[in-house]
Amino acid sequence: MICSLPRPRRVILTHRAFAWTNLARWVVFGVVMFALSPAGRAEAVPTPPVMPLPAEWSYRAGRLAFTPAFTVAMTGHDDARLQASIDGLLQRWNERTGLVLRRGPATAAALLIECGAPGPEIPQLGEDESYTLEVDASRAVLRAPTSTGGLRGLATLQQLLQSDADGWQLPAIQIRDHPRFAWRGLLVDVSRHWMPIEVIKRELDGMALVKLNVLHLHLTDNQGFRVESKRYPRLQEFGSDGHYYTQDQIRAIVVYAAARGIRVVPEFDIPGHTTSWLVGYPELAAAPGPYAIERHWGVFDPVMDPTNKALYRLLDGFLGEMTGLFPDPYLHIGGDEVNGVQWNNNARIQQFIREHGLKDNAGLQAYFSRRVLAIVAKHGRKMVGWDEILTPGLPTDAVIHSWRGPESLARAAQQGYAGILSNGYYIDLIHPAAEHYRVDPLPADTPLTSAEQRRVLGGEGTMWAEWVTPETVDSRIWPRMAAIAERLWSPQPVAAVDDMYRRLAVVSRRLDEAGMRHEAYLDPMLHRLAGDDATPAEILALRAVVDVIEPVKGYHRGDFQPETTQASPLTGLADCARPDSPVALDFIRRIDQFLFTPGEHDPAAAAALARQLTAWHTAAQDLVQNLAPRSPRVREIAPLLLGLADTCGVGEEALQAVADRRPCSDEWRREKLATLTQAGQPRAAVEFMIVPPLRRLVCAAAAGAQRAALTPEAWRQMIEQVAAVPSDKGT
Amino acid sequence: MICSLPRPRRVILTHRAFAWTNLARWVVFGVVMFALSPAGRAEAVPTPPVMPLPAEWSYRAGRLAFTPAFTVAMTGHDDARLQASIDGLLQRWNERTGLVLRRGPATAAALLIECGAPGPEIPQLGEDESYTLEVDASRAVLRAPTSTGGLRGLATLQQLLQSDADGWQLPAIQIRDHPRFAWRGLLVDVSRHWMPIEVIKRELDGMALVKLNVLHLHLTDNQGFRVESKRYPRLQEFGSDGHYYTQDQIRAIVVYAAARGIRVVPEFDIPGHTTSWLVGYPELAAAPGPYAIERHWGVFDPVMDPTNKALYRLLDGFLGEMTGLFPDPYLHIGGDEVNGVQWNNNARIQQFIREHGLKDNAGLQAYFSRRVLAIVAKHGRKMVGWDEILTPGLPTDAVIHSWRGPESLARAAQQGYAGILSNGYYIDLIHPAAEHYRVDPLPADTPLTSAEQRRVLGGEGTMWAEWVTPETVDSRIWPRMAAIAERLWSPQPVAAVDDMYRRLAVVSRRLDEAGMRHEAYLDPMLHRLAGDDATPAEILALRAVVDVIEPVKGYHRGDFQPETTQASPLTGLADCARPDSPVALDFIRRIDQFLFTPGEHDPAAAAALARQLTAWHTAAQDLVQNLAPRSPRVREIAPLLLGLADTCGVGEEALQAVADRRPCSDEWRREKLATLTQAGQPRAAVEFMIVPPLRRLVCAAAAGAQRAALTPEAWRQMIEQVAAVPSDKGT
Repeated sequence: MICSLPRPRRVILTHRAFAWTNLARWVVFGVVMFALSPAGRAEAVPTPPVMPLPAEWSYRAGRLAFTPAFTVAMTGHDDARLQASIDGLLQRWNERTGLVLRRGPATAAALLIECGAPGPEIPQLGEDESYTLEVDASRAVLRAPTSTGGLRGLATLQQLLQSDADGWQLPAIQIRDHPRFAWRGLLVDVSRHWMPIEVIKRELDGMALVKLNVLHLHLTDNQGFRVESKRYPRLQEFGSDGHYYTQDQIRAIVVYAAARGIRVVPEFDIPGHTTSWLVGYPELAAAPGPYAIERHWGVFDPVMDPTNKALYRLLDGFLGEMTGLFPDPYLHIGGDEVNGVQWNNNARIQQFIREHGLKDNAGLQAYFSRRVLAIVAKHGRKMVGWDEILTPGLPTDAVIHSWRGPESLARAAQQGYAGILSNGYYIDLIHPAAEHYRVDPLPADTPLTSAEQRRVLGGEGTMWAEWVTPETVDSRIWPRMAAIAERLWSPQPVAAVDDMYRRLAVVSRRLDEAGMRHEAYLDPMLHRLAGDDATPAEILALRAVVDVIEPVKGYHRGDFQPETTQASPLTGLADCARPDSPVALDFIRRIDQFLFTPGEHDPAAAAALARQLTAWHTAAQDLVQNLAPRSPRVREIAPLLLGLADTCGVGEEALQAVADRRPCSDEWRREKLATLTQAGQPRAAVEFMIVPPLRRLVCAAAAGAQRAALTPEAWRQMIEQVAAVPSDKGT
Repeated sequence: MICSLPRPRRVILTHRAFAWTNLARWVVFGVVMFALSPAGRAEAVPTPPVMPLPAEWSYRAGRLAFTPAFTVAMTGHDDARLQASIDGLLQRWNERTGLVLRRGPATAAALLIECGAPGPEIPQLGEDESYTLEVDASRAVLRAPTSTGGLRGLATLQQLLQSDADGWQLPAIQIRDHPRFAWRGLLVDVSRHWMPIEVIKRELDGMALVKLNVLHLHLTDNQGFRVESKRYPRLQEFGSDGHYYTQDQIRAIVVYAAARGIRVVPEFDIPGHTTSWLVGYPELAAAPGPYAIERHWGVFDPVMDPTNKALYRLLDGFLGEMTGLFPDPYLHIGGDEVNGVQWNNNARIQQFIREHGLKDNAGLQAYFSRRVLAIVAKHGRKMVGWDEILTPGLPTDAVIHSWRGPESLARAAQQGYAGILSNGYYIDLIHPAAEHYRVDPLPADTPLTSAEQRRVLGGEGTMWAEWVTPETVDSRIWPRMAAIAERLWSPQPVAAVDDMYRRLAVVSRRLDEAGMRHEAYLDPMLHRLAGDDATPAEILALRAVVDVIEPVKGYHRGDFQPETTQASPLTGLADCARPDSPVALDFIRRIDQFLFTPGEHDPAAAAALARQLTAWHTAAQDLVQNLAPRSPRVREIAPLLLGLADTCGVGEEALQAVADRRPCSDEWRREKLATLTQAGQPRAAVEFMIVPPLRRLVCAAAAGAQRAALTPEAWRQMIEQVAAVPSDKGT
């Protein structure tokens, strides 16, 4: 009865057609995709509230009710991590339900867990993670060939528990599940901002819940060397400000991850991104020292000197020491973003390039990569590196980690290299989950042969840490990382963005319960920002403001805060704000539904939207009038709050005009759009999520007279076209 | 210029008279003290927003403004913990202000820190913790004889930072500060519910902020053995469910505490409270095993057999091992609550008592204590134990830890024993901060001589852990523990409860910023309780309900949840609720102000109170009508919500009657009081904080006609008398 589907089979029983139909209905505005409810939606079977969505699932009639008599048992293979995982499941279920669910004998168990064999003690790339789950009205049975599959099934079960008027229950369902990609990772940069071990442990808890299986620790960079070397203690002593993982802590992280079926892949980024190494070992650099830990963000000159024999001796010793700590067969050596300045300025290095026929700096880096690969191989590890390491002569057992994109990944696969994708999964850039969700390491139209396709191992979300601290990092990782986890686990056709967001809201609560701080971080930050004198109503008003903003996206944060260094506090409004505010997403959806649903405009919808705009408007105004005079930090953001008030004011006026069918002139439209551009411009490193839909609203108000004459689709296209600004992506 | 005031000098320059005048104005209702604003209050100098209040302070004219040019420097003695503590101060200040305050040269420093010498590497009882702080318009100077005093001064500085319309500033002030008591502790029970090391570390952060200096770890009890023994590994292997501190973690805790000037005193509670020891070593018990870890709460029979020579060998080996981990000269051996059942039932033990002339079980325990004391002394430690260890013949270098009360402590002092007080500081019992604040280890009317007084070392708040988890424990410790910290640090006359609560609200925010979860725990718990379907408005309604309730106090929680074991989730409404809800305390104050302020009733106050009651009323009703049908856990508490609605309804009616001067009959009064008794009774292990003031309101409504004829004081007394119920404390 053990399910062991071959990996290339990508089938879903129930909703492949559903997913595609829905997807086609999505339209891109700006960087967010907004959906109208498809007419046929109500008839479709809703997907289970689980992320990632299982490979195959179908509901059965009925439910398995939870009662105090509900017990759990295990048969077949038994091991410590399964036991711990079952204890964890029961604890979470008990915390949610208030019941005391316990272990019991297998014969009477309402939940039976049956694993065939232990998974590998240290999780391995490509190991069997499959499981099946059958729930009917009398019991639930989770079966898996290995305990790793058992862990994955338990993560599904934890999310399946639901409540309604009749109490707590699992829906009757049949699931056969296995991952699409074997490498499903999260990169955490612990160099630019230090992340204590508690942070890493809680991210591992979150990763386990959404079936991610690789923690990529970006341990070294210009701004900090974050691991203890006993052979070369000057590395952390001079390069870390005392903030590094001890070897015991590294071992603890590896054990904690393994207990959750998660590999730990360390990255030591060389030969660039190495200022922190050079503080203690300036003699390894391509230019004379001394060096100091870099406190700014960017790409910097310091780089190792590949012509220095002592460098390879140190790397040999250091990487050898690290392989004693990190059991995973893969070792990431970075290799990105060498700007060449120090190499160019060093006559001896340029001479070396000529003497060895290396042609240029790229040739020198290729030489370096080959030597490092030999060291890595000598220590029994396979080398992973960023795109830059892929140069002629690189042995094909190196793995390419692509920050450049799927095409780069595909080229590597065609050349025989295995690869993983991170381009499109840069969660530090604050793009919406929908955007990451659309990025597929193996798009449906991939030109790759099936042998080449097998070289595409998966992908990694990247939490680069220039703009996050332990306080805010969860709000940048979660819940969006669950969307990437689904992209990497679930079958390729699972792609309906609205359905993803619906399930994302649910899994976000489960992540919160598992200890992630992506919700809990906010109120303490708002209290601190507001100051001791703020009233509860003012805190709520600030929270309302945060609901409608996002940190600026991409690499623009530094434009607003160019003075920022590693010592700068990240406790401003942009740090309180997070991507994909559910309140704003809901507002955007409702605006477009109001504007583009065929037939008469819904006056109740207009009234609700107006109330929302007025609430934001009032909150912003009250904060400026009442709190700003008492709070230095609120006073600093007063221009932004006034901009929000004006933005909402335009929306209220336009909504009234649409609802009243009052004609508005083109001049009115231009004036209001200009106000939106001016009032709604990014300030204090945040932008208003509601500006693009309000532009559509203004244009619809001005064009109202033409609506009756157009088809719904033509009407929508016209409004979108007029409302678009040149900077809108996707247009 | 170093201040080194002798400890017995207890003087405050500015507000001794103020404090006493205020205190006399406080009146006890139930267990909470409510104050009317004293008429002369506005003229008094407000105390600085610092807890504990310094021994001596006086404001000067002016302020030291914070600008980006503000720098910090250190002169004199320098050590790692001072450096780390200054870094911590700058980080917190930067996080609050958004500025980037830095170190700079001493000559230009806006804040200069000058310590005379290192404090002891491991903090010691009675070490010098004094410091002075002088802030004027140009700079702040912190001076201390030792770095320990420096840490204490930095904690004051961290709290002194304030903001107003002109920005961030330190008020110009002169402070000379030193503690009243040398032993200012927090006991954390990690046995009944396991507290991971992260919890301990964050409590240490909170303790440092309010100048507590002893972490008392209650490491072993019936429900868990929480420390790793390498000599006797069966202790933790069989007694802990795998939840114990490794020796490395213990060392890390000791280091973390020492860096904050905090001693760590371990407690190994023997000979009772030892079930968890006996699981691995049943042969040490006074009755045959086998034993299992106790999962319930209470006092249990299992006890060590003091006649067993092997017991003393194990204790010798084990305690010797522990002294290698815990450097503090004091070692706590518990000694409380032996119920005698096993000893009575063991003929051999009774024979031993007779043969050794020990008279009875108490004699046997005294024999045991003496033998343990010899072992403790052999390992270079002084023994601390609960009241029970004080039996004839106990050497006077033992320290008595009093759970019985100040009289017991005073008797011990008269007999020559040093002692610390915990009676009155049981923060697990959910009493208001005001109640703990009133408890003084050395009351003003103490009969002790000054030599005896010096034996009263201080006290400890006790966080017993039957009803807390890592998720809720902070909400039971903080902010109330700051009131106990002030009682133990500040001069004895600092006792104005209203002023304490005002400063407690401020320090609560500082504690939140330092990472305590006493505020942040709530919203995630309410979300989980409410269920995934709850709307934001419903979460706010639940939060409004939590604002008006408290967990039942004292030892009554078990009456409501008798089935509770260590495995039971603590995620119900009683766990969401916390003592001393600021919203309810404010409401109670305003009710009494409305009723008892001489002159005409204030109609605006009546309207505000009515709005508050209606808000609670509506919230409770809406939750029952709308959320309960969708949420199993809200449905469970529907009776309580209906009780709250009815309670508020009575209040609204009575308020209207008072405001309208509409006469109400005695029958009406009896009926309404009966409704309050019935509707307002504790349910779901919570009670309504507003019932006592609403009883006063009802009585005032019924007696309104008599008001004009009575003096304000007579009116108040009459209302209190009629409104009181026999169970009210303090009447």
